[in-house]
Amino acid sequence: MNTFGTLFRLTTFGESHGPAIGGVVDGMPAGIAIDMDFVRHEMARRRPGQSALTTARREADEVEFLSGIFDGRSTGAPIGFIIRNTDTRPGDYEQAAGWYRPSHADYTYGPEVWLRDHRGGGRSSARETAVRVVGGALAKLVLAQEGIRVEAQLMQVGNETTAEGMEALIRRVKEEGDSIGGVVGCTVTGSPARLGEPLYGKLHAALGAAMLSINACHGFDYGSGFDGVAMRGSEQNDAFVRHSDGSIGTATNHSGGIQGGISNGEPICFRALFKPTPTILRPQQTVDKQGNEGTLAMKGRHDPCVALRAVPVVEAMAAMTILDYYMMDCAGRPFRDTSPQR
Amino acid sequence: MNTFGTLFRLTTFGESHGPAIGGVVDGMPAGIAIDMDFVRHEMARRRPGQSALTTARREADEVEFLSGIFDGRSTGAPIGFIIRNTDTRPGDYEQAAGWYRPSHADYTYGPEVWLRDHRGGGRSSARETAVRVVGGALAKLVLAQEGIRVEAQLMQVGNETTAEGMEALIRRVKEEGDSIGGVVGCTVTGSPARLGEPLYGKLHAALGAAMLSINACHGFDYGSGFDGVAMRGSEQNDAFVRHSDGSIGTATNHSGGIQGGISNGEPICFRALFKPTPTILRPQQTVDKQGNEGTLAMKGRHDPCVALRAVPVVEAMAAMTILDYYMMDCAGRPFRDTSPQR
Amino acid sequence: MNTFGTLFRLTTFGESHGPAIGGVVDGMPAGIAIDMDFVRHEMARRRPGQSALTTARREADEVEFLSGIFDGRSTGAPIGFIIRNTDTRPGDYEQAAGWYRPSHADYTYGPEVWLRDHRGGGRSSARETAVRVVGGALAKLVLAQEGIRVEAQLMQVGNETTAEGMEALIRRVKEEGDSIGGVVGCTVTGSPARLGEPLYGKLHAALGAAMLSINACHGFDYGSGFDGVAMRGSEQNDAFVRHSDGSIGTATNHSGGIQGGISNGEPICFRALFKPTPTILRPQQTVDKQGNEGTLAMKGRHDPCVALRAVPVVEAMAAMTILDYYMMDCAGRPFRDTSPQR
Amino acid sequence: MNTFGTLFRLTTFGESHGPAIGGVVDGMPAGIAIDMDFVRHEMARRRPGQSALTTARREADEVEFLSGIFDGRSTGAPIGFIIRNTDTRPGDYEQAAGWYRPSHADYTYGPEVWLRDHRGGGRSSARETAVRVVGGALAKLVLAQEGIRVEAQLMQVGNETTAEGMEALIRRVKEEGDSIGGVVGCTVTGSPARLGEPLYGKLHAALGAAMLSINACHGFDYGSGFDGVAMRGSEQNDAFVRHSDGSIGTATNHSGGIQGGISNGEPICFRALFKPTPTILRPQQTVDKQGNEGTLAMKGRHDPCVALRAVPVVEAMAAMTILDYYMMDCAGRPFRDTSPQR
Repeated sequence: MNTFGTLFRLTTFGESHGPAIGGVVDGMPAGIAIDMDFVRHEMARRRPGQSALTTARREADEVEFLSGIFDGRSTGAPIGFIIRNTDTRPGDYEQAAGWYRPSHADYTYGPEVWLRDHRGGGRSSARETAVRVVGGALAKLVLAQEGIRVEAQLMQVGNETTAEGMEALIRRVKEEGDSIGGVVGCTVTGSPARLGEPLYGKLHAALGAAMLSINACHGFDYGSGFDGVAMRGSEQNDAFVRHSDGSIGTATNHSGGIQGGISNGEPICFRALFKPTPTILRPQQTVDKQGNEGTLAMKGRHDPCVALRAVPVVEAMAAMTILDYYMMDCAGRPFRDTSPQR
Repeated sequence: MNTFGTLFRLTTFGESHGPAIGGVVDGMPAGIAIDMDFVRHEMARRRPGQSALTTARREADEVEFLSGIFDGRSTGAPIGFIIRNTDTRPGDYEQAAGWYRPSHADYTYGPEVWLRDHRGGGRSSARETAVRVVGGALAKLVLAQEGIRVEAQLMQVGNETTAEGMEALIRRVKEEGDSIGGVVGCTVTGSPARLGEPLYGKLHAALGAAMLSINACHGFDYGSGFDGVAMRGSEQNDAFVRHSDGSIGTATNHSGGIQGGISNGEPICFRALFKPTPTILRPQQTVDKQGNEGTLAMKGRHDPCVALRAVPVVEAMAAMTILDYYMMDCAGRPFRDTSPQR
Repeated sequence: MNTFGTLFRLTTFGESHGPAIGGVVDGMPAGIAIDMDFVRHEMARRRPGQSALTTARREADEVEFLSGIFDGRSTGAPIGFIIRNTDTRPGDYEQAAGWYRPSHADYTYGPEVWLRDHRGGGRSSARETAVRVVGGALAKLVLAQEGIRVEAQLMQVGNETTAEGMEALIRRVKEEGDSIGGVVGCTVTGSPARLGEPLYGKLHAALGAAMLSINACHGFDYGSGFDGVAMRGSEQNDAFVRHSDGSIGTATNHSGGIQGGISNGEPICFRALFKPTPTILRPQQTVDKQGNEGTLAMKGRHDPCVALRAVPVVEAMAAMTILDYYMMDCAGRPFRDTSPQR
Repeated sequence: MNTFGTLFRLTTFGESHGPAIGGVVDGMPAGIAIDMDFVRHEMARRRPGQSALTTARREADEVEFLSGIFDGRSTGAPIGFIIRNTDTRPGDYEQAAGWYRPSHADYTYGPEVWLRDHRGGGRSSARETAVRVVGGALAKLVLAQEGIRVEAQLMQVGNETTAEGMEALIRRVKEEGDSIGGVVGCTVTGSPARLGEPLYGKLHAALGAAMLSINACHGFDYGSGFDGVAMRGSEQNDAFVRHSDGSIGTATNHSGGIQGGISNGEPICFRALFKPTPTILRPQQTVDKQGNEGTLAMKGRHDPCVALRAVPVVEAMAAMTILDYYMMDCAGRPFRDTSPQR
């Protein structure tokens, strides 16, 4: 399905080569000032064509809001919006018409399941993430009011972890017409303790599902994560300490701000792994719809490291997830307040 | 919330030290033969106290089915079941009463949110996973009828990846009163192509959320995963080939059987990372409810490597997820069949 | 599916002639004192065999709570409970084995869909409503703390609307081995304004679905309802007035406390129509599974007017619905408070 | 929330006086031919300004489809669409600015809950039903392919049940600047037996919720309904008979095609009651936002009998509900087929 979230919900629609993509944000609290400059700024961060490191595809990405906002504030009604598609070059894609592009969704979306719209990636296109960034921008406006901040950054490209190394590697891979994987790290600060559920709705399970729903995301971990597999419990456990202001915190944060599925008030830290984009300009072995084997060599625009452009999308998905849980938490709060005996 | 799944749903209840734990499986297809020996066998795989490598806690874990089964077959009605708790030793836990156990859920489930039931881990106890294993066993019975098989195994403990190495390391860690992380790998074979959704319901996002909902799971990846971060697209892409029987497959499986969020018919492969159990027998720094700092030294039973006992739980969660998507897929199938023009 | 509600959720299981029925209440706020006498009292109101007017079936209906309650208070964890079936007389039902009972669910639950468990009504039995009454009792305990009260009563049996007339009519119908329809009215007092959603989640749509989910309920209306079909808008509209304490209210309540799908603070009033129970002792024309026509004459216990016993079930479903919306409302409240400009 | 349905889902957005209203249909099966003339025809049936009996407001109601359709067929991707608002006359509404219109949603959507957008009815406007009609038209296209047909008609206005009587009464009420209630009847033919769930998802509970979600709908019943309250079970029960072609059916249809919450293959029949529109041109007593009492006399366009224009909306909601259940039923069907022993 094309809806994300429970109380704060984003429903998206649109293909990369149709007239428009768009979405509906349902559950936006009323009375929030909608800073259009901020929304535009967030969109600009995701937009391709900004540097030599990303695809040359250019999109104006003008968001047209159709409802749910009045006099500059959210009304509580659903916020519908569309983004017209302007720079569509189906020619680039027709090269592959009839051929299943390796590690793309062409085959799995094949004739038994979906009509294959050969004009582009259809719903599997990363263009859909522009809609997520709009949803995330709205969520961030609410979170900011509550003092919660979500920030992601590129942490690793291939085996490179320094800014210069990552940039140089992306350039090299691009020149080779190839692509490379990367890791995005994300931190949520200012989150209160107690967001999350002990069982199936663990906060990190929701964050993991949110990240894994982003195109090309192949892995997720939080806190010490996969790097901590060889740690002993005595090293990994986060000792509780009393801060000078009397509040309780942890001396380390191997738990990534989440214990037993629930936030503990420390920064929430997680990573999302992105595989190399499957669209490469080197010839690849494949088959066509009739089952004939052959070689496919694509031309055109491509993103050598999709992790780079995923950074604002990671933030958007994290912001919507955290806000959803924040609102969920509010649902039970009044009852707690009236139970003095606890 | 305490429900998992959409069309095949498990709702669970019960604390480790209350009278019973239990669950309700809703959406079980009618007419499935319920092999009670198989259910018992699955339960036995998870049960503690079976080897020197796991906790000494012993539980009979007898499942009492209360509904939804008649003459040995599922009726389509919800299957309610309970498992009585027999070996509860609250004394073991009272050692910690008043102290927040580091990296446990004690603090995050604290007084503002939940009443703290000091008799044991409450809902955060791994005992709840026994209920998941029952749900998974029922799901496996349906999947088996459709030719789908789910198998998990311990792949790594600390930095050890051989059977002898893993066993020796767990023993050593246990003697030290400490714990260690591990990785469980899981493979689903016989799954048809086309399970999954392109956006928020990507198959691997659902599997990721399912794994991350298991106690102590700190990470998830699929296919080449985190180890493939340095691969080029030209290496990582799975070339399509035509098999000798005319069917289409991939030459490699770096995609882990899932492309664009949808299964492609290859084996579905993923990994779940488990952190070292936070319960250790070595003294740890912490604070109590009043905020006093101190040292907590626990005695009693503990699991040095929770990944070991997580193996059947990983299978159970994977089986329920795959069946849920299989049923979801069925919902759209009849319409497809009647559209010859595609 | 067998789950009711969104934030306050009841999942039920069990057949009338299996070992037990039961349920799981998920979303119960923590810290609520669980008055067991009140739960028993509510169960007693629904229990059959209490008067000459209802079925002679006797059930102890002892609720065994298995989780989610500690030291007499809810912990916030799911409350699982079971009710053992004690007075099962499958013989009564075997009369009908092989025959489709007219206007029962036998045919619609038939072989293509469900395995037919001939020992009783299975899931379609009104016995399942005992589980709803437990869920409703828990919801009422929360609502009482918030000053909200739910009360239903039998308003009409056939064309009779007086207490004596209704009783006499039920006796007469019972002697004839027949059954008769009735109407239950329900009023919720103390509910705040603003519960409900403007579109698909209108409060009365939720109440309607809740009522129509009760066995034999064939209709629902609220406020002036079907009786008001001939009213003019100028009569039906509820004029707003200012009460002496400065608060705003309405001079009449033809809206039944709900305007535009949202409560307005006046008493919420609705009606549920119950058809005559299909189980009657008079011979009826029907067919058997092989399609042979014949006459079925049943013997045994029967309820001449199911509306009578539906009264506490109506209250239970209403209480769970109102609490669910009350909790939903709380989810958005904190954001509103911080928007002074509205 | 602003989403309707489970597997076939409509999400709507937009206010009557904003730039556009619109929706997203998610779950549309792939490969369905989208007959645009049919969609336009359905829209035309709902559009105001067509006769002297309805409001004079004129809307072009051109639907712009933005996604999910390719080469004239559904692709399986979500279908996003918008309808621009053209004939907005906020002046009509400013008459009421500051005053709570009796029995409208003004008060319940008031400042504590939603920002009040005084330019029109906002989300509570019947204009939103245009989006429902688009969703219903798409659902009908799928149902038609499966041989299922949904038809509604105005059955009663006030106490009038003949076509001439209803028309004369509406004219008279309109001249008086008043409004009147009415009843819409709906019949679904060609539906297979077995749609529905035995408990909370009873087919008639879903249809009831769907109807009660339409503006001004105050009641719902099915089969013999409220008129059958005085029937005996021996009259109300539908005897099963064997038709000449060997199939099983019922001699009467007091059950309205639904028994035990599940369709039995007979025509599904239900009624929806609509109260008189609250917008009338006669002076009414009310209060303003400051709590001052006064008289509000509105001028402009109004619908004297909203039931008349509700007919296509009733069909749309019924079509979406039936298709949703039809798809749900499909989810379990394959398993049934493979269980020969039943």
